[in-house]
Amino acid sequence: MREALAEARIAADEGEVPVGAVVVARGRVIARGHNMTERLADPTAHAEMIALTAATEALGGKYLSDCALYVTLEPCPMCAAALAWAQLGRLVYGASDPRRGYARFTPSLLHPKTEVVSGILDEESLDLLTAFFQERRK
Amino acid sequence: MREALAEARIAADEGEVPVGAVVVARGRVIARGHNMTERLADPTAHAEMIALTAATEALGGKYLSDCALYVTLEPCPMCAAALAWAQLGRLVYGASDPRRGYARFTPSLLHPKTEVVSGILDEESLDLLTAFFQERRK
Repeated sequence: MREALAEARIAADEGEVPVGAVVVARGRVIARGHNMTERLADPTAHAEMIALTAATEALGGKYLSDCALYVTLEPCPMCAAALAWAQLGRLVYGASDPRRGYARFTPSLLHPKTEVVSGILDEESLDLLTAFFQERRK
Repeated sequence: MREALAEARIAADEGEVPVGAVVVARGRVIARGHNMTERLADPTAHAEMIALTAATEALGGKYLSDCALYVTLEPCPMCAAALAWAQLGRLVYGASDPRRGYARFTPSLLHPKTEVVSGILDEESLDLLTAFFQERRK
């Protein structure tokens, strides 16, 4: 998750909402991503989508069943459904996002086999987001 | 929708599940996409995602409020949520997809301002899908 937070900090430095993600396979980071929606003017360029696509490219296949994705914020429904298509093995996220997160949708947007762990370094993640939005409101 | 069906046919010729999409702004097609999940080994490379990203690139902005997206099959939850981020003005789809479509999720995955029209050329769309899966099962 520290690596995902480092990605989130890169996003903040670039004026993007600070969310970062990494994909881990066999204990090794195989892909990284941070939010780039502004720079690319693409509303789908979330950290998770970028990390997911980079991971499938690294593995040469469509599935991430043996991978864990670490992301600093609860994924949105688009990202959760994308991770479902990839049959992600394990999702680990930091802060919850009650307004825009995937968890408020039913049925579940994740793949039934995806394990979920949440709350990891959530304060660090929220601190980054809060600082970003405070700066933007100045 | 005929243009979206033409995109779906390209997907079928490439061995991809035949789904096609186009984005229309002011009566003109500004972006096209067809399913490329196999070729790119990327589970997010759905017709709608490709057309959406191409459309925001063509317009130079993140939003498609003044656009219509035509797609041959009911979008999946990932695509619907992506279209919500883009604040799509109008979604027109062909065949319904009761198993994998977005409509069975609550709350709605689409943006509240997105108008929806369905059932347009749905038989042509289903014919393409049925032929594709019959061929694959041989």
